Amino acid sequence: RFGLAEEKDQVGVVTGLAYTSVGGELLNIEALRLPGKGRMKTTGKLGDVMKESIDAASSYVRSIAPEIGVKPPKFDKLDIHVHVPDGATPKDGPSAGLAMTTAIVSVLTGIPVRKDIAMTGEVSLRGNAMPIGGLKEKLLAALRGGIKTVLIPEENVKDLADIPDNVKEGLEIIPVTHASEVLEHALTKKPEPIEWDQEAEDAAAAEAALRKGSDDGAGAVTH
Amino acid sequence: RFGLAEEKDQVGVVTGLAYTSVGGELLNIEALRLPGKGRMKTTGKLGDVMKESIDAASSYVRSIAPEIGVKPPKFDKLDIHVHVPDGATPKDGPSAGLAMTTAIVSVLTGIPVRKDIAMTGEVSLRGNAMPIGGLKEKLLAALRGGIKTVLIPEENVKDLADIPDNVKEGLEIIPVTHASEVLEHALTKKPEPIEWDQEAEDAAAAEAALRKGSDDGAGAVTH
Amino acid sequence: RFGLAEEKDQVGVVTGLAYTSVGGELLNIEALRLPGKGRMKTTGKLGDVMKESIDAASSYVRSIAPEIGVKPPKFDKLDIHVHVPDGATPKDGPSAGLAMTTAIVSVLTGIPVRKDIAMTGEVSLRGNAMPIGGLKEKLLAALRGGIKTVLIPEENVKDLADIPDNVKEGLEIIPVTHASEVLEHALTKKPEPIEWDQEAEDAAAAEAALRKGSDDGAGAVTH
Amino acid sequence: RFGLAEEKDQVGVVTGLAYTSVGGELLNIEALRLPGKGRMKTTGKLGDVMKESIDAASSYVRSIAPEIGVKPPKFDKLDIHVHVPDGATPKDGPSAGLAMTTAIVSVLTGIPVRKDIAMTGEVSLRGNAMPIGGLKEKLLAALRGGIKTVLIPEENVKDLADIPDNVKEGLEIIPVTHASEVLEHALTKKPEPIEWDQEAEDAAAAEAALRKGSDDGAGAVTH
Amino acid sequence: RFGLAEEKDQVGVVTGLAYTSVGGELLNIEALRLPGKGRMKTTGKLGDVMKESIDAASSYVRSIAPEIGVKPPKFDKLDIHVHVPDGATPKDGPSAGLAMTTAIVSVLTGIPVRKDIAMTGEVSLRGNAMPIGGLKEKLLAALRGGIKTVLIPEENVKDLADIPDNVKEGLEIIPVTHASEVLEHALTKKPEPIEWDQEAEDAAAAEAALRKGSDDGAGAVTH
Amino acid sequence: RFGLAEEKDQVGVVTGLAYTSVGGELLNIEALRLPGKGRMKTTGKLGDVMKESIDAASSYVRSIAPEIGVKPPKFDKLDIHVHVPDGATPKDGPSAGLAMTTAIVSVLTGIPVRKDIAMTGEVSLRGNAMPIGGLKEKLLAALRGGIKTVLIPEENVKDLADIPDNVKEGLEIIPVTHASEVLEHALTKKPEPIEWDQEAEDAAAAEAALRKGSDDGAGAVTH
Ligand SMILES: [Ca+2]
Ligand SMILES: [Ca+2]
Ligand SMILES: [Ca+2]
Ligand SMILES: [Ca+2]
Ligand SMILES: [Ca+2]
Ligand SMILES: [Ca+2]
Ligand SMILES: [Ca+2]
Ligand SMILES: [Ca+2]
Ligand SMILES: [Ca+2]
Ligand SMILES: [Ca+2]
Ligand SMILES: [Ca+2]
Ligand SMILES: [Ca+2]
Repeated sequence: RFGLAEEKDQVGVVTGLAYTSVGGELLNIEALRLPGKGRMKTTGKLGDVMKESIDAASSYVRSIAPEIGVKPPKFDKLDIHVHVPDGATPKDGPSAGLAMTTAIVSVLTGIPVRKDIAMTGEVSLRGNAMPIGGLKEKLLAALRGGIKTVLIPEENVKDLADIPDNVKEGLEIIPVTHASEVLEHALTKKPEPIEWDQEAEDAAAAEAALRKGSDDGAGAVTH
Repeated sequence: RFGLAEEKDQVGVVTGLAYTSVGGELLNIEALRLPGKGRMKTTGKLGDVMKESIDAASSYVRSIAPEIGVKPPKFDKLDIHVHVPDGATPKDGPSAGLAMTTAIVSVLTGIPVRKDIAMTGEVSLRGNAMPIGGLKEKLLAALRGGIKTVLIPEENVKDLADIPDNVKEGLEIIPVTHASEVLEHALTKKPEPIEWDQEAEDAAAAEAALRKGSDDGAGAVTH
Repeated sequence: RFGLAEEKDQVGVVTGLAYTSVGGELLNIEALRLPGKGRMKTTGKLGDVMKESIDAASSYVRSIAPEIGVKPPKFDKLDIHVHVPDGATPKDGPSAGLAMTTAIVSVLTGIPVRKDIAMTGEVSLRGNAMPIGGLKEKLLAALRGGIKTVLIPEENVKDLADIPDNVKEGLEIIPVTHASEVLEHALTKKPEPIEWDQEAEDAAAAEAALRKGSDDGAGAVTH
Repeated sequence: RFGLAEEKDQVGVVTGLAYTSVGGELLNIEALRLPGKGRMKTTGKLGDVMKESIDAASSYVRSIAPEIGVKPPKFDKLDIHVHVPDGATPKDGPSAGLAMTTAIVSVLTGIPVRKDIAMTGEVSLRGNAMPIGGLKEKLLAALRGGIKTVLIPEENVKDLADIPDNVKEGLEIIPVTHASEVLEHALTKKPEPIEWDQEAEDAAAAEAALRKGSDDGAGAVTH
Repeated sequence: RFGLAEEKDQVGVVTGLAYTSVGGELLNIEALRLPGKGRMKTTGKLGDVMKESIDAASSYVRSIAPEIGVKPPKFDKLDIHVHVPDGATPKDGPSAGLAMTTAIVSVLTGIPVRKDIAMTGEVSLRGNAMPIGGLKEKLLAALRGGIKTVLIPEENVKDLADIPDNVKEGLEIIPVTHASEVLEHALTKKPEPIEWDQEAEDAAAAEAALRKGSDDGAGAVTH
Repeated sequence: RFGLAEEKDQVGVVTGLAYTSVGGELLNIEALRLPGKGRMKTTGKLGDVMKESIDAASSYVRSIAPEIGVKPPKFDKLDIHVHVPDGATPKDGPSAGLAMTTAIVSVLTGIPVRKDIAMTGEVSLRGNAMPIGGLKEKLLAALRGGIKTVLIPEENVKDLADIPDNVKEGLEIIPVTHASEVLEHALTKKPEPIEWDQEAEDAAAAEAALRKGSDDGAGAVTH
């Protein structure tokens, strides 16, 4: 099953696309959410650039927490583990950034990812979709792996001219300029935003701390 | 006794299978659970890929805690030490992932592992059994070491064609696609699942904290 | 859109100027502010000197917190993430110091940065603007990228003699000697200073702690 | 006195046996127990494999704490320092594992180690005694150093055939299969086991915390 | 302005003297004091020996805290950042120790440093001024940079014989044997010592803790 | 003054003896005690073996705390900084162990070290004085530096045969077998031991915690 599209929609499981000297390959990215302390764990022999792309994806997601229905303090109470099998193959580069973003949003919201979609694209800290290399090899790998839809950065549309017709016919190729578009396409349902006013929350917390402090053993006694 | 099957069913002791340039070998994996703070310690001259496979196994097990009868907060109160003797021989690679998963589940549940079973297979973060190399050498080592049953990834079944008949006759070879099947075969009894509702637990904890806070030294006295 | 001026004024997004062996380039610096514990995270394959320049910028900004309307204790409750795409290209050197300073002030104050301005210059711990190399290539990149105004260190004014006339006519080039001038030019509005007396704050906190301590469950009741 | 047997039975002082390219040597292992936080410090230019063997010994000892009369929570309140003089000579390998186990048990229980005994053998996480190399050179060093009794792993008994008769006559050589046998031979008295029921302890602690919580300033007073 | 004397007396800004293969140079050392936790941050591409010289300077200053009017507990509530521009030039060696000492004392006391003074000399943990190399080149750089007064270690007085007369006439050269002399010359006013009795402070703190403990919610009520 | 005996008896200042390819040298070891958290800081370009010798010395001193009049909990409230000028010369080896022990005891007790004494010798974790190399060169350096008395390990007495008569006549050379002898010779007065019963202290602390717990807000009210 390795190197093929997933068999069902799953939470935290995203198909990225890798490009190596021997061609394109599907990346079966797996993310888990565990009770914890806001830590990010990464495994799968990932290089520094890929690890940084996960950091950038993670900060971007934290910055849009209320838009995906997640209260910001929740991040301090969970750890996220991102693993990219197989464990023996080195992987690097920033081009799985949009896929990492999707995996993180999926585990935070509990919304599954569509099994027949793959994606490639660097993500910036603001969620911008940035161009990648090896588009042709990646699309070939997607087709070979049974993928139906591929999300690519808008800035790579110019490279589609070099892609064989059968590949373009066998895949729905959707250009995106921002991670928010990726989430719309890849998640099986749309997250529901919540209201969140950090200033108000801080004020309420300070107020509560104050009240607790002044009450602390105050021994208010009425007769 | 080194390089041979265990003499009795033990908690935390699992037989993996290694494959080196000089042939296959039994890996006598040992795990211990100690009072602690949720840390994982690994010893035995393990390479980075093997350490990451232990991380992946550990996160997978945490993600299924209630299914094996373990309350998630328990993880914060214990450390797990995984050791792979002998201490002087370097070991690496992801193929002991299923064995690490089994060792960790065994120490968490206190359920012993069958002494006459060995296993090979990478584990993904979702518990998927992933294919490995060196199947022939590993099976030969298992036979030589007195093992009765070997669990292998389903995706390696195709490699059985190259295995000598005497090996296939001397061992019960069971293909698996997921860690849950491994646990069923390897543990001497089935863990009993518990109910666990993280949201409810969080709410109860928040409630308790609130009550404690407002009570704190309140000294409400009526006359 | 990579390598071009931004399309709108944004919080935390600053255009720096890089100079490599193949010419000048725009640096699209992105900063985010997240709830946290006073940590600085940096990504984008940044070298040690660039990371240190971010540290210097950050300490300078902390030292002027009240002047930009930020209460010093606020720093302990947030993390700042600075990312410089693209993630695969190594970047180094101290010359983005003024741009980093601007990005950090922008995320702390919530004041957007003018989209058509770029800047180059090392920043000292006191906010001094220090000279940089590659001015010609940087100005060419700014012009090419659609930038209108470029801030340069006063000490680099002497290098303007070597700059082609069309570049000097196509750009407003403003020499600066200090980060405070940079902020005046680059932010879309001026931060409002606050009063802050650290000694008084410390004394008040000590007083509060003392009062809380002696009250702690004291329940002094007279009838 | 270096390279000779100890002059008196001491707590935490164990004689191991090393094997280098220039022959065998006594290892005068020293352990100290200090008030602390459960940390292990090691000095004496120890290589990674020897440090890991100390980790394995330490975890094994923690796992048998009640059997040697030590309450498990005690480990969190002390540090152990293991030093192997002389400080300038690099030392490595797993074969001092049984000796490290003995040193750690000695400092925890306060029971001295017999001065005229030496030992060699890797220890597994379960306390198994595992075979070592260089038996002949080690036994020669023991004899030369005035040692009376040497503990060796059972699996090395086969190597005794190559040992000169005068060595076998000058030393009492005792094969062992497990660390528990080592402790019986090496300690000057047997540790007294205690009863320890971790579940019961946890429950009691939880109960106490609860009671303290609900009492916290409750001051329930009825008239 | 880089490589020149400062334009005004400033807190935390000290002129050191460096000596490289291409001659002497002014080091414009900058120090900042920030609310924090007793950490020392250093930037400016400093080598390990220079970082250690900052550590030694810092410990020396902590050891004389009451003599410069600083209560020792204050150190736990602030961080100090020492930066040596420019950020791209590697700097190393112990000879800026006296300058680092001066910068740290200046930020702790808030007393400015004289702008027309430069200094060179290693500092020992006791504040002793230790000899340095490259005196001639350093003095030349000082003269060139507009410095009026240079402090040098007493043990370097013998090297003055090799210094050209115009340099010795253009600079006031003051030999020092101890950091306390440096502070007298370099600070614009003398710090006022305070009384500090650590034993008494500890006893008072223990007493307060005890009182708070026994009072905690004691609710002593008399009618 | 560098390379010469000290001018007065000082707390924390000990003269060690180094031996390099170019001969012997005095090591002017400096130690400071600072309010802190039980950390050891070392500076002066020290190699790993010398750092480990400081660790061993430190643990030995902690293990004899009551014998030198120091309550063990005191260690958690102070940091010790050991510096060996000059900062630019690399230093390594275990032979300053006895000197480090003396420096640490001196700063803990506040008892000065005799200015005209030097010492060489590795220290074991039990305080044993262990043999060193380069005795001749070290003694020559001591004589040259104005030292009156040199402490050497008993096991080095055999090397005195090779020492020129004038050196042996110019120095009082005292062989020692244990750090306790070193302290007797080197400190200007003998530390006064205290009684310390760790078990009793622990029990008292537990008792106090219990009492505080049950009192916590108990609101005992009598009418
Ligand atoms: Ca592969
Ligand atoms: Ca689109
Ligand atoms: Ca082996
Ligand atoms: Ca199956
Ligand atoms: Ca690029
Ligand atoms: Ca200007
Ligand atoms: Ca030796
Ligand atoms: Ca036996
Ligand atoms: Ca320069
Ligand atoms: Ca003087
Ligand atoms: Ca020197
Ligand atoms: Ca003696």
